[in-house]
Amino acid sequence: MKYNVAVMGATGAVGNCFLRILEERKFPVKNIRLLASEHSRGKKLKFKGKPYPVEALTHDSFKGIDIVLASAGASRSLEFLPSAVKAGAVCVDNSSAFRTEKNVPLVVPEVNPEKIKENKGIIANPNCSTIQMVVALWPIHRITKIKRIVVTTFQSVSGAGQKKIIELWEQSKMFLAKKKVTPVEFPHRIAFNLIPQIDVFMENRYTKEEMKIGNETRKIMKDPFIQVNATCIRVPVFYAHSESVNIETEKHIGADEVQEILSKAPGLVVIDDPENNSYPMPMLAEGKDEVFVGRIRQDESIKNGISMWIVSDNIRKGAALNAIQIAERLIK
Amino acid sequence: MKYNVAVMGATGAVGNCFLRILEERKFPVKNIRLLASEHSRGKKLKFKGKPYPVEALTHDSFKGIDIVLASAGASRSLEFLPSAVKAGAVCVDNSSAFRTEKNVPLVVPEVNPEKIKENKGIIANPNCSTIQMVVALWPIHRITKIKRIVVTTFQSVSGAGQKKIIELWEQSKMFLAKKKVTPVEFPHRIAFNLIPQIDVFMENRYTKEEMKIGNETRKIMKDPFIQVNATCIRVPVFYAHSESVNIETEKHIGADEVQEILSKAPGLVVIDDPENNSYPMPMLAEGKDEVFVGRIRQDESIKNGISMWIVSDNIRKGAALNAIQIAERLIK
Repeated sequence: MKYNVAVMGATGAVGNCFLRILEERKFPVKNIRLLASEHSRGKKLKFKGKPYPVEALTHDSFKGIDIVLASAGASRSLEFLPSAVKAGAVCVDNSSAFRTEKNVPLVVPEVNPEKIKENKGIIANPNCSTIQMVVALWPIHRITKIKRIVVTTFQSVSGAGQKKIIELWEQSKMFLAKKKVTPVEFPHRIAFNLIPQIDVFMENRYTKEEMKIGNETRKIMKDPFIQVNATCIRVPVFYAHSESVNIETEKHIGADEVQEILSKAPGLVVIDDPENNSYPMPMLAEGKDEVFVGRIRQDESIKNGISMWIVSDNIRKGAALNAIQIAERLIK
Repeated sequence: MKYNVAVMGATGAVGNCFLRILEERKFPVKNIRLLASEHSRGKKLKFKGKPYPVEALTHDSFKGIDIVLASAGASRSLEFLPSAVKAGAVCVDNSSAFRTEKNVPLVVPEVNPEKIKENKGIIANPNCSTIQMVVALWPIHRITKIKRIVVTTFQSVSGAGQKKIIELWEQSKMFLAKKKVTPVEFPHRIAFNLIPQIDVFMENRYTKEEMKIGNETRKIMKDPFIQVNATCIRVPVFYAHSESVNIETEKHIGADEVQEILSKAPGLVVIDDPENNSYPMPMLAEGKDEVFVGRIRQDESIKNGISMWIVSDNIRKGAALNAIQIAERLIK
C-alpha cells in the first residue's frame, strides 16, 4: 500500500525536513506533490534523488492526495486544509491553526497516539517547545501526576524559519567583522544576543508561544489541571531547542527514579553524567531524532520537585519528524 | 582624603574593569598598585592616562595599601588576603573564597549596605548571577516575603574570564568559515551552542554556581527561609548575564505593583513595553551600570507568583562596579 503525499510549505525549513525524513524512514510514498507559495513555483526540490517541481498552492492542489503534511503557517492552513479534507485527504498540520480546536486531535505519538484515530481529516502537530517537553514529562506524569511546570526555553533561530537561520549567520559574520548589524527578520540583533520574545504578546503580557506551551501540554497529557508557567527566549543557536524544566509532582519521586524511567521511555535518550561533563546540548541534538534529557536532579526547594534540562532538534522531533510519526501510525 | 588602592588580578576582565570604573567614578585614589601573577609582571596598564607597571603578587605587596580590590580567583584570595588584612588594608574580594564565612559581610549596596561596617578586613562581593537577582528581588521582598525562587540563568562568556571571551570570538569565526572547532577553554564548543554547566558539579548534581545563588541570596537578603532552585547555562553572548526568574511570595502582589516598585528602586531600570518589543537584552545592558528588569507578569500557575527577566553587565554590576560601590561606602 502506497500513498499520495502532498507537502505544503515544501520550500521552508520544516518542508525540506519533511522530504528528508520521508526518504530516511522509507515512508510508502506513491506520488509526492510539493506545494508552496506562488513565488516558489517552478523551483525544483529533490526527493529520493529525483527533482520535483514546486507547485503553487491552490484549493485544487489536493485532488487524489491521501496525506497532507502541512507547514506553511497558520493562515494558509486555515484557508487551504478544509479543501484538502474535502478532497478526501488526511492532513497533519504543523501550524497552530487547529491545535486548540476541540475536535482536532493534538498528537505526540509517544504520549497520546490513541487520539489519531479520532481525527476528522485534520490532526494537529504541537508546537516544537511543547513536543520535546511532553515526551520527557509524560513518563513521569504516569507515575505521579505533575501539578506544576516552570519552564524557560532556549529556542534556536531555525524555529522561526529559513530566513532567520540566514539572518543569524549573516549577523554573526558582520558582528565579527566589526560592522554594523541591522536586524531585518528579528525585531533586534540576535547574533551574540538574546531576545526574550517569541511570537506576539498577549494581553496578559505573556507571548503566544508561552501560552501555547501550557494549553497544548494540558491537551496532549489529557490533564486540565497541570499548571504551567513558561518563559520563551530566542538564543543565537541554529538548530535544537533547549529547556530548563522544573516540575512539582503530587507524590515524591527521586532523581534516580526519574533517570531510570526516562532511560526506558520511547523517543528519549538520557545523557546525564556530570562527572564527565556529559549532558544534552544543542550541538549534540542537531539532526537527531530523539529528545535528550539530562541534569536530572532533586529540587529541594519544594517537597516534591525535580529539575531537568531537555534538548531536541526543533525541526525534526519538534516539527517534521513528529508529523511523519503521526502519518506512520495513521496508515498502520 | 585619598587612598592607596591595590588591584589584585589587574590583567583580567574584571581587573581591567576595576581601573575603568575607578576612573569613571573619580574614586579618590592616591596611588594605585597593579598586582597579577608572575607571568604578567612588567606588563603596563593605563590608569587615568598614565601607564602603570604590573607587579607580581606576593605576601609583601600590601605595604601602605588602604583598599584592596581583588579578582584573582578563590585560591589566591585565600592565600594572599590575610596578608593584606595584616598589613592594615580592607579588602573587597570578588572571589568566592570568603562569601559564606560567618564573619565576612557579603554585600550588595542596594540591599545590605549596613553590613559593610561589620567587616574585619574582608568584605565579599557576591557571585555575578546573585547580585543582579537580589537587586531586583529585594524591593519586592521588603513588601511581601519571597518564599521560593526558580531561576534559570543565561550567562555570558565574560563571566568566565578574558580567555573565554577570545574563545567565543575565535570559535564563532571558525564555525562561520566552516572549519573544525576544537574547544580549549570550555569543555565543549560554545559558539552557536549552549553549555548547561558553570563551575564544577557537586554531589547533589547541582553545579557550584547553582548552589551559590541560593546560599548567597539567603545571606544577602538576611532570610534563611528563602528557597531557591537554580539552573545555570552558559550562552554564546560576550557580555551581560540574563535570568528568567519566577518567584512565589507570601502575599499576593500584582505585576503592575511590582513594576511600580522596581521603577523606583535604586540601581534598577525597568524596560517593559512588550507592545513596542521593548525588554531587557544583553546587547542593551553591555557596558551599563544598572540592572535591567522586564517581562514582569503575573504567574497564574500558583496563588502568589511573579515572573520576570533580569539582565545586567556581569563584569560591571556583577563584579567590578559592585565592589567599587562597596569601597565607596567604606570610605564614606
